Amino acid sequence: MQENYQQKTLGILGGGQLGRMVIQSAINYNIDIHILDPDQHAPCRHIAHAFTQGKLTDFDTVYEFGKNCDILTIEIENVNTDALEQLAKEGKKVFPQPHIIKLIQDKREQKQFYKNHQIPTADFILTDNREAVKAQSDFLPAVNKLGKEGYDGRGVQVLHSEADLDKAFEAPSLVEKLVDFDKEISVIVARNEQGELNAFPPVECAFHPTANLVEFLFAPAQISDEVNQKAIEVAKDVMTKLDMVGILAVEMFVTQDGEILVNEVAPRPHNSGHHTIEANFTSQFEQHLRSVMGMPLGNTDLRTPAAMVNLLGEDGFTGEALVEGMDEAIHEKGVYIHLYGKKITKPFRKMGHVTILEENVEALKYKALKIKDIIKIKA
Amino acid sequence: MQENYQQKTLGILGGGQLGRMVIQSAINYNIDIHILDPDQHAPCRHIAHAFTQGKLTDFDTVYEFGKNCDILTIEIENVNTDALEQLAKEGKKVFPQPHIIKLIQDKREQKQFYKNHQIPTADFILTDNREAVKAQSDFLPAVNKLGKEGYDGRGVQVLHSEADLDKAFEAPSLVEKLVDFDKEISVIVARNEQGELNAFPPVECAFHPTANLVEFLFAPAQISDEVNQKAIEVAKDVMTKLDMVGILAVEMFVTQDGEILVNEVAPRPHNSGHHTIEANFTSQFEQHLRSVMGMPLGNTDLRTPAAMVNLLGEDGFTGEALVEGMDEAIHEKGVYIHLYGKKITKPFRKMGHVTILEENVEALKYKALKIKDIIKIKA
Repeated sequence: MQENYQQKTLGILGGGQLGRMVIQSAINYNIDIHILDPDQHAPCRHIAHAFTQGKLTDFDTVYEFGKNCDILTIEIENVNTDALEQLAKEGKKVFPQPHIIKLIQDKREQKQFYKNHQIPTADFILTDNREAVKAQSDFLPAVNKLGKEGYDGRGVQVLHSEADLDKAFEAPSLVEKLVDFDKEISVIVARNEQGELNAFPPVECAFHPTANLVEFLFAPAQISDEVNQKAIEVAKDVMTKLDMVGILAVEMFVTQDGEILVNEVAPRPHNSGHHTIEANFTSQFEQHLRSVMGMPLGNTDLRTPAAMVNLLGEDGFTGEALVEGMDEAIHEKGVYIHLYGKKITKPFRKMGHVTILEENVEALKYKALKIKDIIKIKA
Repeated sequence: MQENYQQKTLGILGGGQLGRMVIQSAINYNIDIHILDPDQHAPCRHIAHAFTQGKLTDFDTVYEFGKNCDILTIEIENVNTDALEQLAKEGKKVFPQPHIIKLIQDKREQKQFYKNHQIPTADFILTDNREAVKAQSDFLPAVNKLGKEGYDGRGVQVLHSEADLDKAFEAPSLVEKLVDFDKEISVIVARNEQGELNAFPPVECAFHPTANLVEFLFAPAQISDEVNQKAIEVAKDVMTKLDMVGILAVEMFVTQDGEILVNEVAPRPHNSGHHTIEANFTSQFEQHLRSVMGMPLGNTDLRTPAAMVNLLGEDGFTGEALVEGMDEAIHEKGVYIHLYGKKITKPFRKMGHVTILEENVEALKYKALKIKDIIKIKA
């Protein structure tokens, strides 16, 4: 059989760093990638086969873009799913399927889905407005999550006590029991049209000892074989029950009792999978490509333990980006810098990431913290 | 110190697969790459920041191209070195240095250099024309090599006996003693402006048991520690004596007595280094980039034993390329396909390569041969 992937055009909605890293994999397969993004300076711009500047939430823009592609996928959730539904009806392959993107866009729909399908998740109550949240003072401590258009922390509010209730969202949201978790982990799963399904080894978030911040991510997660297996089963279960094709990052809590609770999912490559480029036999970006293009999935085994540190713009610096400490970092064995093609830095803007490979997990963690100190993005 | 590699423009003379793979590394550093190539469909075309179609051997073309770059390098030897000399005089960084490219372009100059610098190489005689070659019948068996413009086998003629003398080149050439070698190996070395120098682990050519053809390349080479060390020393010695900055592939023979003889060098990434993308801590392409951009060199250790199989267009097929056997191949753990962006296949055209990772070297060789059987490029 002759497989002609290079004859198919893949369109990606979103032209950020996730799409950029998918293109980096696609180059090896001669697959032409079309990108749609509102930003003319989008990270994908210069390496895409074709770039269209336009709004991802606009029906006509997405529809016109999609007509020139054979297969469509996303690298960001906030897209016009009606246009994708129309394109799918007209015979385009759209993965993830539009109704799944739509479900995931709404955190309330997401949580209901877990509940209805016996997927373990923290208890929650749907709330239509602030008054409804305020009525749940017995449910605290809790997390108030906006139903739609919450991204990267905007749309999530922790309510420790009644004093916090005034911060509740004035819009359809949910109130979820605050989990006293032991660990936060993530499992990325992929599934293709043929139903082939596999999971990447769980990744763990390393928290700052006192501040409630994630310092870096590392794999393999330091969890028991039992918890490891359970986490993978839960992630695969979500994928199967969604009947989704594509790649799905499942963020989970491991409770003090070793139970798994699904926190959130993202139907695209995810920050918790960046290390896979150097650390695993197949990267999440390659896997995303394979899953939507109808190719066989790749092996996800870890080759070497790895940590991933995000490179965020330093606070107090805005302007043309400069990377401080690059030479020192890249002179080290097993340190890999990925810059995202963004010329301008702003405080906390995701400008790149660094992956560290190291066989000894304690040495790995030490190196990850050291890298965080060495590399700074300033202007 | 703030290192601003992303503010420098790198120009590469040549837009083939070697340049394409350098660009794949450069993407991670936000380094903009300009490409010059005569072919409008060159492999680099769609992923280069800027592409100029033009002749690499033309002075004005190369000079005008180079004026818009900060740093210049090559991915093919046959370029106009006078233009590069002029650009270097005008303050551009040109690596490899033009006089070194010029020396290597001429096999006679190359061999003289080895002789004058005590670099071990097979005995040879310079010959100005066919008559001069014919006068060397006592020197046979030998290899007749054209001085200039021999590439990929064109310009090399084996003279087993007097009967072959009529095939000798009618142009300045050299006659080199045919080496009864035990193995053919290759060592790639890199050196930056700061004088930092390191070598990749030696790679071995695996020959067909009867036909005199290389079936695949693999690393680590199956040579003694002593030969391994000697090979690396010789390669570094060549680099140091050339005082070259950039990357140099040194092809060598290991004689029946375990001696090293330098066969040829290439001042650019080389076929014998393709496996390094997945197999080593740093790839040769990344290393090429680092060496010419003034960045610290990367660690070259092998992570996993690897083999590399070239994907050449099947004999008898010309036209739009189709890859037969792709699915079967990429479903295997540790198999990596790299297609070079060439739409049209021709018999024996270099269309891509496949790298196989496998801890057990005998299993590795078996898998390499199996992959050769599975993947075919047809039209």
